[in-house]
Amino acid sequence: MSQQDMTTAPDLKSWVESANAADSEFPIQNLPYGVFSTKNGAPRVGVAIGDSILDLAVLAGEGVLQCKPDVFARASLNDFIAEGPATWRSVREQVSALLSASDQTLQGNAALRATSLVPQSEAAMLLPVEIPGYTDFYSSKEHATNVGSLFRDPKNALLPNWSEIPIGYNGRASSVIVSGTPVRRPNGQIKLPDQERPVFGACRKLDIELETGFIVGVPNALGDPIPCEEAEKHIFGMVLLNDWSARDFQAWEYVPLGPFNAKTFATTISPWVVTMDALAPFRTTQPKQDPQPLAYLQHAGDHAFDIQLEALIKPQNAAEPTTIARTNFKYMYWTMAQQLAHHTVSGCNTRVGDLMGSGTISGPTPDSLGSLLEMTFNGREPVTLKTGEKRAFIEDGDELTLRGWCQGNGYRVGFGPCTGVILPAHPAK
Amino acid sequence: MSQQDMTTAPDLKSWVESANAADSEFPIQNLPYGVFSTKNGAPRVGVAIGDSILDLAVLAGEGVLQCKPDVFARASLNDFIAEGPATWRSVREQVSALLSASDQTLQGNAALRATSLVPQSEAAMLLPVEIPGYTDFYSSKEHATNVGSLFRDPKNALLPNWSEIPIGYNGRASSVIVSGTPVRRPNGQIKLPDQERPVFGACRKLDIELETGFIVGVPNALGDPIPCEEAEKHIFGMVLLNDWSARDFQAWEYVPLGPFNAKTFATTISPWVVTMDALAPFRTTQPKQDPQPLAYLQHAGDHAFDIQLEALIKPQNAAEPTTIARTNFKYMYWTMAQQLAHHTVSGCNTRVGDLMGSGTISGPTPDSLGSLLEMTFNGREPVTLKTGEKRAFIEDGDELTLRGWCQGNGYRVGFGPCTGVILPAHPAK
Repeated sequence: MSQQDMTTAPDLKSWVESANAADSEFPIQNLPYGVFSTKNGAPRVGVAIGDSILDLAVLAGEGVLQCKPDVFARASLNDFIAEGPATWRSVREQVSALLSASDQTLQGNAALRATSLVPQSEAAMLLPVEIPGYTDFYSSKEHATNVGSLFRDPKNALLPNWSEIPIGYNGRASSVIVSGTPVRRPNGQIKLPDQERPVFGACRKLDIELETGFIVGVPNALGDPIPCEEAEKHIFGMVLLNDWSARDFQAWEYVPLGPFNAKTFATTISPWVVTMDALAPFRTTQPKQDPQPLAYLQHAGDHAFDIQLEALIKPQNAAEPTTIARTNFKYMYWTMAQQLAHHTVSGCNTRVGDLMGSGTISGPTPDSLGSLLEMTFNGREPVTLKTGEKRAFIEDGDELTLRGWCQGNGYRVGFGPCTGVILPAHPAK
Repeated sequence: MSQQDMTTAPDLKSWVESANAADSEFPIQNLPYGVFSTKNGAPRVGVAIGDSILDLAVLAGEGVLQCKPDVFARASLNDFIAEGPATWRSVREQVSALLSASDQTLQGNAALRATSLVPQSEAAMLLPVEIPGYTDFYSSKEHATNVGSLFRDPKNALLPNWSEIPIGYNGRASSVIVSGTPVRRPNGQIKLPDQERPVFGACRKLDIELETGFIVGVPNALGDPIPCEEAEKHIFGMVLLNDWSARDFQAWEYVPLGPFNAKTFATTISPWVVTMDALAPFRTTQPKQDPQPLAYLQHAGDHAFDIQLEALIKPQNAAEPTTIARTNFKYMYWTMAQQLAHHTVSGCNTRVGDLMGSGTISGPTPDSLGSLLEMTFNGREPVTLKTGEKRAFIEDGDELTLRGWCQGNGYRVGFGPCTGVILPAHPAK
């Protein structure tokens, strides 16, 4: 589709001038969906364009946008997503046309522009999707190797099942929050090496996990697996995802049933969902898989995406953040299609809005690691920030931000920041 | 409350005669909630009484039952549950009065009886609760010891964290189904000891896990833990739960992030939710905990419940089932209150309708084991059924049933069967 898709043509320009800046994350080629509210307005669906938001509820209400009535006058994208790929495509093409420099429908209607184009600075972004289920994978070979080495055995860091299975686990959907929501440092059990019994208290090894996530758009019924070759058609779009992790809780609790309290206190996603149409021009080849996966995990063609990723940390009183990681989604060993095929091969059903995290995205170099656990060797070698401060793990007041974008020819398709400030723990009783 | 609660008085009788039989699971002391539909009726909320269902939507519509309008004309209990404990109590008392042998409101109104009392044989039971999140615990000491011995090391079967943490993991809410729904044998990866790589195919070690579950009735906000002493007040009621498990998939996939495809294909719950009010007379002392739990897991008083449990298996053409396990919920080491306190101590939020599984309930004797894995020593010593057939694990066409009840003085408070028939796997590609 990317070859003929006029909505991603590099030379397309918008009459919304801020969208045409080379460093805008929201050019007319992007058109990501989000849910926002304003001082006087209920939550509704919008599309980011430059420094503004196009209010799709207003446009649909005015009959300028042809779609099922009221599907955008909602506090989540779910009803729109449930309409299916033909509707996604139709709305994208209509929005692209309405925002195009060559179109006068909206550009030439000052009254409609005034009600339908909202400055992002006047909007509060809400969780874009009501998430029925959240699954997190573990699909970066570099990350799995690094963690295996730190938590278990450096000589056998990568477990035998890892190269055969896109390993994943069920996460906690209730605590998925939108970028900008503060994160309270969790209390929990910590097993110190010099004490026989665990202590209860605030997490001492609070960490990020730099991830992306995808949103299921076309569900499957219980008992009906999604074939790997078909799996991408079930994906609506992608988000940035920070899988906050309490490493000290995790090390003590995770055997044998996996991480629980170490992860369930918060997971932050970006406010904007970037569609697969917008990402199509950035499709690239995934790493070679050895051994060749079992038949149900095979798919022809390119299924990786070239998404540049960064993690930044800003202490409470710092003037500017320090970038602590630069990596890329294209390094992931298992693809999103393989993840979804594996998730459903048992017959497990998915639902519209299900969130599937990639797992921490670590690259091959020391500056491309997606967690402090890896960067600091479990806290032994702290990183130094621009302010001169050191960080083994996250401290109270620190603001953590993930960024991600695809670099096009003269434009970039971005997600907007995925951020959270750490609040001090409640007193531990 | 149980001392003064007239709704659980042992000598209370109903004018619905079938409810007064000593072996009825639905006497007037029970009054469990479920969701049902009939040939000509949309899904709605009802209460089981003897061999019938009292249609609360009809009674509320007629003004006989005082409650928020339409809260029972729903396809799930969630809106009713969200009304909170005072409403649960009020509706229970009203329903108890309406069904009491001494009351004429309904007993003396043939027309209203005809529309509001539905034979269970004419109703289809639906999933009673819309489940935003499903968590499964691992709280039977006997089960954890048996599984640790079979999957890991008999000498160190119980891991060090088990005695400190009510270990749990996130399950898959989408595939929680109501009793009576057939279960398709899943396909997945199996690692055979004599082959280097896994094979893909139908599960060869399909198993049950005999559990109960509780339904969260009063949620907590993100960042606000539920104290252990308060936790039971957040519980609406209990169900039976069969955590179907593919043991061969599980053994290969579960390190390091826990069970996934081994469990996500189906979890069956009973159609009736038995309230904490109905269970109150069966409260008893939990097993002594050694070491004494950390402070956040401490609660005074009795927090176990004496619920007798059975698992039965019936091959496709067998005349009658064979009981393969008899156990009791009172054997559980960690209480529901401790599970909920631990789940939320990190700040994790819960939502109305969240399902929390107990974990497999195994007792201290060989006939009280809650899974075939344990009964057959991972298939090495099959059990013999009444028909003479042997079972190492579940075969296609087998019907598995869980039953559970509290034995009162002349009455029993039951859950109704929690059952599922196994369909053959789809051909593995």
